[in-house]
Amino acid sequence: MAQQVGTAALLLIGNELLSGKVHEQNLVELARTLRALGIKLSRAVVVLDDVETIAREIRALKAEHDVVFTSGGVGPTHDDVTIEAVARAFDVSVSMHPTMEKLLRDAYKEKTTEGHLRMALVPEGAELVTTSEVPWPTVVMKDVWVLPGVPEIFRMKLSVVRAWMKGPLPFVSKAVFTRLEEAALKPLIDTVVAAHPDVEVGSYPKWFDDTYKTKVTFDARDDAAVERAVERFVSELPAEHLARIE
Amino acid sequence: MAQQVGTAALLLIGNELLSGKVHEQNLVELARTLRALGIKLSRAVVVLDDVETIAREIRALKAEHDVVFTSGGVGPTHDDVTIEAVARAFDVSVSMHPTMEKLLRDAYKEKTTEGHLRMALVPEGAELVTTSEVPWPTVVMKDVWVLPGVPEIFRMKLSVVRAWMKGPLPFVSKAVFTRLEEAALKPLIDTVVAAHPDVEVGSYPKWFDDTYKTKVTFDARDDAAVERAVERFVSELPAEHLARIE
Repeated sequence: MAQQVGTAALLLIGNELLSGKVHEQNLVELARTLRALGIKLSRAVVVLDDVETIAREIRALKAEHDVVFTSGGVGPTHDDVTIEAVARAFDVSVSMHPTMEKLLRDAYKEKTTEGHLRMALVPEGAELVTTSEVPWPTVVMKDVWVLPGVPEIFRMKLSVVRAWMKGPLPFVSKAVFTRLEEAALKPLIDTVVAAHPDVEVGSYPKWFDDTYKTKVTFDARDDAAVERAVERFVSELPAEHLARIE
Repeated sequence: MAQQVGTAALLLIGNELLSGKVHEQNLVELARTLRALGIKLSRAVVVLDDVETIAREIRALKAEHDVVFTSGGVGPTHDDVTIEAVARAFDVSVSMHPTMEKLLRDAYKEKTTEGHLRMALVPEGAELVTTSEVPWPTVVMKDVWVLPGVPEIFRMKLSVVRAWMKGPLPFVSKAVFTRLEEAALKPLIDTVVAAHPDVEVGSYPKWFDDTYKTKVTFDARDDAAVERAVERFVSELPAEHLARIE
């Protein structure tokens, strides 16, 4: 049975993300996955490869969210310190998990190195989560999901997340694309925001698009509430300024 | 004269980044800009459009970094709360800046709305920073740089950052692309890391590339130190496993 999860946070780990050597790709993928599950991602933090910084951040994020995902810093080399940091966050030690060790020895056979076996290290008390689609285990330590940084592998692991957790209710989202600039729309948006406090209204100017100038979004867990807010907005928007609704 | 800056942090603001509606683009651009200036970006945080959350985060980031950049949440609508949050972080009020007001009234003339004039609001005590290239002012409040979220405008504003600040010394970076997997490289990497503590060594596996398997990076502010570490690494790497050096 899927675990009920209300809020989540993401910790992105890696010097390469903060030096600009690598363009971060995983936030948007996790955000979309959680959104579809009805789970609210309310914070993401990008930190350097430093054990103490990562451990402190995991503790802080875990204190305020049901689930924390980490991305990056898992692997065999000296700059892969996430497992050690997760262990430190929970004041436990790191040890070799027999299941992971066997999987690695079976995979690499006589070529198995100390480097490979480092990937069998897990914090004491961690669970190994699998699905039939992704049989390679994912390490989960007290609702901290340890995911890899490589975007292709990160995306693959999201199918495990989809299989193992779900939110209270899915989000419903609509967007109205208008030909008015944001400042001109402000009075109408303010009216709708005030009249529909149950709907989250967002306003996004587009500077370089010929088809519209401002996208106005309407989000809630209640389908009917979103519809009401969109109807109100569109009914007061002069028709010539409406580009499309999605 | 450019301001000397050692460390920086970035606060990315917007519900749309955490719902997956928008793929975050500004971190990598700022990271590369600061890197080229020799300034260390050591943390980035992504938060929702909530005044109190943003204010708290600005205080926390400012306490640990010389300069903080914010991205997003500036504009005329109800979900644009960054200016208010920056003011709250420094316990000051928000007021209309006469220079900004005049620029907006000159730009929009008789079409100027209350929405436009909201963009003239700044925290008490903020400076307006310009360059000849980007004459539209950037709001800077006690080393908190308020930048827009729209990626095209964010990138344009980075030329102002380049004009106004610089780091102690530029970073030097080299990368060796090898045909060995990470685990097999580990002993050699460990040797180089131990022998060259003044150089930051990173190891990045590439899963889906025909030309190499692991990229090993060498970074420092000292050119000669980087060269020594690269030479050591390459001298002990069997030639058939070396793909290229960049």
